Amino acid sequence: MEKETKKQKNSELRQDIVTGDWVVISTARAKRPKEFAEHGREPVIEDPDKVCIFCHPEETGQEKDVLIYQNADGDWSLRVIPNKFPAFSRPVGGLMKHKEEGPYFHMDAIGYHEIIITHDHKKSLAQLDKYRAAEVVDAYQDRYIDLMNKKSVNYIEIFHNHGKEAGASVGHPHSQLVAIPVISPYIKGELDGAEEYHKMNKACVYCAMLEWELEHKKRIIFENDSFVAFCPFSSRAAFEVWVMPKKHKPYFERTSVDDKVLAGETLQVALSKIFKGLNDPPYNFYMHTAPCDGKDYPHYHWHIEILPRMSTWAGLEYSTGIEISTIEPEEAAKFLREN
Amino acid sequence: MEKETKKQKNSELRQDIVTGDWVVISTARAKRPKEFAEHGREPVIEDPDKVCIFCHPEETGQEKDVLIYQNADGDWSLRVIPNKFPAFSRPVGGLMKHKEEGPYFHMDAIGYHEIIITHDHKKSLAQLDKYRAAEVVDAYQDRYIDLMNKKSVNYIEIFHNHGKEAGASVGHPHSQLVAIPVISPYIKGELDGAEEYHKMNKACVYCAMLEWELEHKKRIIFENDSFVAFCPFSSRAAFEVWVMPKKHKPYFERTSVDDKVLAGETLQVALSKIFKGLNDPPYNFYMHTAPCDGKDYPHYHWHIEILPRMSTWAGLEYSTGIEISTIEPEEAAKFLREN
Repeated sequence: MEKETKKQKNSELRQDIVTGDWVVISTARAKRPKEFAEHGREPVIEDPDKVCIFCHPEETGQEKDVLIYQNADGDWSLRVIPNKFPAFSRPVGGLMKHKEEGPYFHMDAIGYHEIIITHDHKKSLAQLDKYRAAEVVDAYQDRYIDLMNKKSVNYIEIFHNHGKEAGASVGHPHSQLVAIPVISPYIKGELDGAEEYHKMNKACVYCAMLEWELEHKKRIIFENDSFVAFCPFSSRAAFEVWVMPKKHKPYFERTSVDDKVLAGETLQVALSKIFKGLNDPPYNFYMHTAPCDGKDYPHYHWHIEILPRMSTWAGLEYSTGIEISTIEPEEAAKFLREN
Repeated sequence: MEKETKKQKNSELRQDIVTGDWVVISTARAKRPKEFAEHGREPVIEDPDKVCIFCHPEETGQEKDVLIYQNADGDWSLRVIPNKFPAFSRPVGGLMKHKEEGPYFHMDAIGYHEIIITHDHKKSLAQLDKYRAAEVVDAYQDRYIDLMNKKSVNYIEIFHNHGKEAGASVGHPHSQLVAIPVISPYIKGELDGAEEYHKMNKACVYCAMLEWELEHKKRIIFENDSFVAFCPFSSRAAFEVWVMPKKHKPYFERTSVDDKVLAGETLQVALSKIFKGLNDPPYNFYMHTAPCDGKDYPHYHWHIEILPRMSTWAGLEYSTGIEISTIEPEEAAKFLREN
């Protein structure tokens, strides 16, 4: 009975009344209090090779693919499936409910949560060739375009967890996409900052950054005709790398066919340098792009941020939002460039 | 030679030119790139009982205490020492340097970084009695007051890491204090939000929260005459607990002697419920209080946030700032209340 009641409940987005930030109270992933006590931290599911749910999603009661790419042999090379344990549940019949509880505000956490799976169980993105990497960027764009105009989707976040310490709960390489009704606080901070900078300087802040980086080269680790990979001046983490289009491009979804290949190459080279130079460390990467909420964001500049997880966030980071990096970005860039 | 050059360099605060946020590039903790590759993630130092550096700091070349409390037997019960590997270095001779590099801005990361150590090697704060817990709050206040008027100290953050997964690098229970020149982004978000709420509602947002919580009681886990412990409506983490003065109090440093005992009791009870109910999980806690930058913050309300680390932050959290909690705060509160 208890279980059934829980199932009918949607996940919730709750707003922090002080900061305006959002959290998700996830019911699809909900556990009983006792389970926390018995199992301690949420278990990261090890991947027993024989029953990899991403090698054969069709055999594990998984819903069917929302996208599938085939290779020349007719076998699949990439597939996208709905997440079985979504942080955001798909809208069922009608409107999202906005609710109040005293001074607080919350709403149904509806949206889409998908998994983008590459075929090879053992090869991470760092180990793919540039065409396979470009195929991943292709899939990101295909899914983005399919979801961006859905009702109540205002932002789409695409991210990738590699390694247990980076929160990957399945070993088989995969990215994730969430299409959500709110603009996340980190994106909002960047949009506001970019607009402010434009007001003051009549220029894109990311273009200003790139101009400096491309002239001085000390933090660049790779570039091709359209993209550049560099360690940002104010890196949040040791060996952090950003992949960014050289020209001013607010919207990822408008990336051209040629540029998708060059984006895939740059991402793959950056990940490969991290993989080789740092002995396959855990990492997260994610894309930041202009929201798809119907407004214009001419001053934004889409990019991918790669965060190797060389240390553990602790009280200082969680309390202040100030992160500590134990290597200079210039030194990190030199090391990665030469790897 | 290399090492000497590095030693003379101060840690740096670098500003993100998009968001205005800060990161620290720490030279005191700096490592060579090869060390990252060889050791993988930064090692969390296990605590071999026989050489605990916090049981006998005087025997390990540690600088001398900045504060020491004795018990009736004349033995120390609590001591505060400078951190040997500070994230913020003490100011040496003169002014903090502000520097520019092209479009970027950085400055010396000067400040104070101290360790607050309780005597018992095996007992965490959750296991102390309320008087020993109050002694810890006492020490927080003593050190706060000593540092708050130092030149270039504008904010003081006090935090505590418990357990390896929460980033504790030494097993002996201890808190940390950093006194820093910048207002951290998370505090700034709360100060701005509190001011905005006051403008709209002519009331403190935290008082409004407490009024609702104390009336409905469903998220309260403990209260005494002056303090309350509750699971916040928009919890960032499963089993998150806040400890807050019931009356409107912007400034932690002005806490009265009586209230320090009641604050210590509330913190200890909250930690003890987490310790017992969840089988001693890793956690961080930290204090948020009005800055000591000489300005007035009449609308703020100091408090302590306890974040049990029941899950791993992954790509979604790092990319969006939206956190996912897998238990409803009401259910978490009920469970902790009854433990």
